[in-house]
Amino acid sequence: MGYGELDQKSINTIRLLAVDATFHSNSGHPGAPMGMAPVAHVLFNKFMSFNPKNPKWLNRDRFVLSNGHGCMLQYALLHLFGYDLSMDDIKAFRTVDSKTPGHPEAHDTPGIEVTTGPLGQGVCNAVGLAMAQAHTAATFNRPGFDVVDNYTYCFLGDGCLMEGVSGEASSLAGHLQLGNLICIYDDNHISIDGDTNCAFTEDVVKRYEAYGWHVVVVDDGDNDLAAMEAAIQKCKEVKDKPSMVKLKTTIGFGSLQQGTHGVHGSPLKADDVKQVKKKWGFNPDESFHVPKEIYELYAKHAAEGAAAEARWDQMLAKYAQQFPAEHAELQRRVKGDLPKDWEKSLPVYTPQDAAVATRKLSETVLSKIESAVPELFGGSADLTGSNLTRWKTAVDFQPKATGLGDYAGRYVRYGVREHGMGAIMNGLAAYGTILPYGGTFLNFVSYAAGAVRLSALSGVRVIWVATHDSIGLGEDGPTHQPIETLAHFRALPNCMVWRPADGNETSAAYYVALTSKHTPSILAFSRQNLPHLEGSTIEKAAKGGYVALEAEGAHITLVSTGSEVGICIDAAKHLQEKHGVKARVVSMPCFEAFDSQSKEYRLSVLPDGVPSLSVEVMSTMGWERYTHEQFGINRFGASGAYKDVYKKFEFTPEGISKRAVATIDFWKDVPNIRSPVNRAFQQHI
Amino acid sequence: MGYGELDQKSINTIRLLAVDATFHSNSGHPGAPMGMAPVAHVLFNKFMSFNPKNPKWLNRDRFVLSNGHGCMLQYALLHLFGYDLSMDDIKAFRTVDSKTPGHPEAHDTPGIEVTTGPLGQGVCNAVGLAMAQAHTAATFNRPGFDVVDNYTYCFLGDGCLMEGVSGEASSLAGHLQLGNLICIYDDNHISIDGDTNCAFTEDVVKRYEAYGWHVVVVDDGDNDLAAMEAAIQKCKEVKDKPSMVKLKTTIGFGSLQQGTHGVHGSPLKADDVKQVKKKWGFNPDESFHVPKEIYELYAKHAAEGAAAEARWDQMLAKYAQQFPAEHAELQRRVKGDLPKDWEKSLPVYTPQDAAVATRKLSETVLSKIESAVPELFGGSADLTGSNLTRWKTAVDFQPKATGLGDYAGRYVRYGVREHGMGAIMNGLAAYGTILPYGGTFLNFVSYAAGAVRLSALSGVRVIWVATHDSIGLGEDGPTHQPIETLAHFRALPNCMVWRPADGNETSAAYYVALTSKHTPSILAFSRQNLPHLEGSTIEKAAKGGYVALEAEGAHITLVSTGSEVGICIDAAKHLQEKHGVKARVVSMPCFEAFDSQSKEYRLSVLPDGVPSLSVEVMSTMGWERYTHEQFGINRFGASGAYKDVYKKFEFTPEGISKRAVATIDFWKDVPNIRSPVNRAFQQHI
Repeated sequence: MGYGELDQKSINTIRLLAVDATFHSNSGHPGAPMGMAPVAHVLFNKFMSFNPKNPKWLNRDRFVLSNGHGCMLQYALLHLFGYDLSMDDIKAFRTVDSKTPGHPEAHDTPGIEVTTGPLGQGVCNAVGLAMAQAHTAATFNRPGFDVVDNYTYCFLGDGCLMEGVSGEASSLAGHLQLGNLICIYDDNHISIDGDTNCAFTEDVVKRYEAYGWHVVVVDDGDNDLAAMEAAIQKCKEVKDKPSMVKLKTTIGFGSLQQGTHGVHGSPLKADDVKQVKKKWGFNPDESFHVPKEIYELYAKHAAEGAAAEARWDQMLAKYAQQFPAEHAELQRRVKGDLPKDWEKSLPVYTPQDAAVATRKLSETVLSKIESAVPELFGGSADLTGSNLTRWKTAVDFQPKATGLGDYAGRYVRYGVREHGMGAIMNGLAAYGTILPYGGTFLNFVSYAAGAVRLSALSGVRVIWVATHDSIGLGEDGPTHQPIETLAHFRALPNCMVWRPADGNETSAAYYVALTSKHTPSILAFSRQNLPHLEGSTIEKAAKGGYVALEAEGAHITLVSTGSEVGICIDAAKHLQEKHGVKARVVSMPCFEAFDSQSKEYRLSVLPDGVPSLSVEVMSTMGWERYTHEQFGINRFGASGAYKDVYKKFEFTPEGISKRAVATIDFWKDVPNIRSPVNRAFQQHI
Repeated sequence: MGYGELDQKSINTIRLLAVDATFHSNSGHPGAPMGMAPVAHVLFNKFMSFNPKNPKWLNRDRFVLSNGHGCMLQYALLHLFGYDLSMDDIKAFRTVDSKTPGHPEAHDTPGIEVTTGPLGQGVCNAVGLAMAQAHTAATFNRPGFDVVDNYTYCFLGDGCLMEGVSGEASSLAGHLQLGNLICIYDDNHISIDGDTNCAFTEDVVKRYEAYGWHVVVVDDGDNDLAAMEAAIQKCKEVKDKPSMVKLKTTIGFGSLQQGTHGVHGSPLKADDVKQVKKKWGFNPDESFHVPKEIYELYAKHAAEGAAAEARWDQMLAKYAQQFPAEHAELQRRVKGDLPKDWEKSLPVYTPQDAAVATRKLSETVLSKIESAVPELFGGSADLTGSNLTRWKTAVDFQPKATGLGDYAGRYVRYGVREHGMGAIMNGLAAYGTILPYGGTFLNFVSYAAGAVRLSALSGVRVIWVATHDSIGLGEDGPTHQPIETLAHFRALPNCMVWRPADGNETSAAYYVALTSKHTPSILAFSRQNLPHLEGSTIEKAAKGGYVALEAEGAHITLVSTGSEVGICIDAAKHLQEKHGVKARVVSMPCFEAFDSQSKEYRLSVLPDGVPSLSVEVMSTMGWERYTHEQFGINRFGASGAYKDVYKKFEFTPEGISKRAVATIDFWKDVPNIRSPVNRAFQQHI
């Protein structure tokens, strides 16, 4: 407590950095930084522990700016505390290849934990960070050794609260009793359309209490620093509930337009900039000014953080002596390395093994590797028995009070909350000690598209176990049968989409997904049983595409994925017997992995001189990149037994053969047909 | 009130139809129908007004099964009331091309209002139906003439409540004070993962009260028919709030497995089927049995509905006399026809007109056509000033009590709720008198992917005004810049994606979107200004693709959309001047519209013998279908002024020219290069 002039000057310095940066770039959002500077000053200086010289210190308090458009607030704080973010970086706000992009990006800027901006995501990331802390503490802490005891703090605005995804994660956070999570709701009553009265009149306090949260209201978020401190302190004392501080603030505080949406998404006008500087005793003709004493004040707190880390290092050294195995394990996880030889646990199959659904094969992989890879921490959006995401001996991640598990448990009951699950997984992955996976039907990964996009953009290792991957799910029908889904996520940069055809390919998919440290993966698995292929191995499948059936002097290459590869192999027989046609079959479980192979290899799989036909029971979009002709389903599916549905759409040896013959016939006059692997120039990647 | 044996027998008949159909198809969900049969019996017989012989009667009460997996409940009701759904249809449950697919589909089955199954969607559709009723009443009702005064009823389960999308729409419904909406929450405490205690422990009553709903709890949803009736009656009496009845039921009531998730998604075992029939006095060896007196009872209520419609017809005849203009207008709307000559309001441009952003051109279209097309009813997910979706004189759709508008208003403040908006629009469109549109950034249409998919599957005319359509939005950066979005929705069947290049193309996009009665459209608009093309007309652009710049003896065809078409035209000049290369330019604002043209036309646009290069600042996926080479961005974008970002990725006349030259060079040895329009065989569409 006891706030004075220096605090006010700090707050105004932050506000003016946001004013100057947005004015200078002629773009951006000054309103939220100006409104939230007071609470940021209190939170960062009085509560948060972090070391700007080591932004990755494991036990740092986490901060998430869910209303990411207010990122100049965060950039200003990072700069003042001495993170590697210079005043030139601040001046480069919103310019190409700067460290200060228009919304905070975790991979670009030291001190940014997660990439935010798309509303509603950040608060879910914060839930994931808090879950990760709880789990890591339950796993590694020992009496006298609080290896991790950090808090996760999150700022969010009206927009985040209106987005359904935040409701999903908040409901789960309440259920999970995450006392280590404290959110500050910037209740400024303004959104882009104007006063929130026009669309958002619910009782937020009551709603969050209904979720099982502890809620405190602070009436004067512009000035009453002591009340803010007291509120946050109170939240810290509530250990069995996540907390929210509903903080009434004035957007764009200090501007002539304060309290209106005019100051939300546009820089202040030149005279307004001068006016506000004059009012606060700053030189109106000077920009990007930080008084020396403010740097000193913030450096002092940064030094406290460095000292805290030093004490933690000492504690950890003792921990290493007393618990060497735990210490080594923690170090390994933090580095992001997998345990040595973990991949030897991956199951291998031969064609003699019984036909099995790939979702079942996925369950076998998880069951075999879970003890070798203890950072695996997963669940399902209420489809556990269908996704087969839970190994038999798994313990649920639950608060002990429920009697259903504990925080050391590694299986999460996400509820029917796909989008929330996806966004929470981004937070889990960002914590640094956990490898998250989550299950739902492939079709419903689309509900989480916003979160998957941020996994890819921020480069986190998140794994979707996406079962019931096609019309092959049968009776549930077109509302549940993906058509566009694979095309969608294949078009998403830095996202791997796998659709394995059998056991070895399933193992390969997990192998590549787990070893790709900075790429999310969507593993699409069948509901129906599939035979093991003659030609598959983990090594071959890990290349993303390989020859599953070779044929000397082939007339055609059939290129397929998942459940259709086996049918293509039958079709090759049928073509030979009924049409005298020689067909090769290529299995291509992952476009992205295949694209990363050498051109020489890719040409060996998809050679010049042979026309090719893709076979996949969904949208043909994207297959033109690999094949000359495409057999797919560019309409919605049908409800019925899966064999009947396959028959309806002619995905049978006969139906494929018919199109293979048409393909050969169509291309027979083109001499030396080129493989689509050949391209005129290199793409931006 | 006064329920007896016949009511119980009715309820058990419904339950057994669900038991038999799921057993017979060896697939499906008996649990919810068995649990909700009592309330369905009460609701449909005591409250709902409908005419099975005319399922499209405008003033019918609407019913939405948001927990769509329980569709055998709905099919049983439709059959008993005498809709065109025979016992053979019931027996064909979950078989290919039946009227009784695995989840209810509006376009397949008479009496199904909206397609449900993907959880959370139906209740949002119900909000849309209720908004549509309120707006239609405010527009067409006159003293003494309640042209529409129907209610919307919705059943929903735990899963629907866990999905964030339902929270979005429910919050808005509370704000909008929709007294004509009554939801029945099947509180059976079971989801697929087991007891809802494992993931869903929030206080639903309190949450819905926080949204501004009226909530009633009924403790015995299995037996207490009178309490159910009283609760629904009470809800009808609350006119200024949407209502929810929280109804405690036993899932799979009657089964040996009742109250467990074992009866949720799998048929009852054979002995259990017999057991339950015996218990209720039915012949255990008989299946699909409906006692005669039950048919009679339900026929009686159906006849009451027919009589109600007859009275309504008489009222409407008088209305036609007193309000001929309103009556004619209503008839027109219900038919789905647009007003005569509306398209004459579409603006037309010449190259001399000033360069304008297509989002601004979209605003001009809306402003010009809104009075000609009064069924246009739209809004924005809190981006009105950015999406430019509101014409100046628009009145907000708001409850009068807010002082911000009234129900006759046609502009909706959706709040930051993209997914909810998409699902609500599906309900608005399904009502029959409204043509909904909604605005957000293109990147955030992805948040609503689940709803867009259902627009396409159910074939409703919904229009997305998707502005800020590319890296051209500039400073907001990669979190907001779409890369995969167009590929995603182009891969979605029955969904039109438009990306107009100028004013005439913008008018064409609206023209085709409005005249496509059974297809949703996503209109992607630029933030930045674009010049009007020399060669564009509404007629040409409406074909989806056309030659914007012809060149005799062309060496290459550049194929592009939106903001890149103008740059391609500059590139053509550059190619001529610097490289002596003749380039044609094709503008292709809509793949789907182009695909529906004759092959002859398509070949005239993309002819044989000329190599082609696509130019679009996003994922190249899908462009291989139309062009030989592709210039795009298969990575995430960058934050900066849009011209700097375009330069970074080389989308400049020089950058395009370089790749055009590479394309010509690469294909020069191939004689008579084939247009990709030529295909070996026809796709499934």
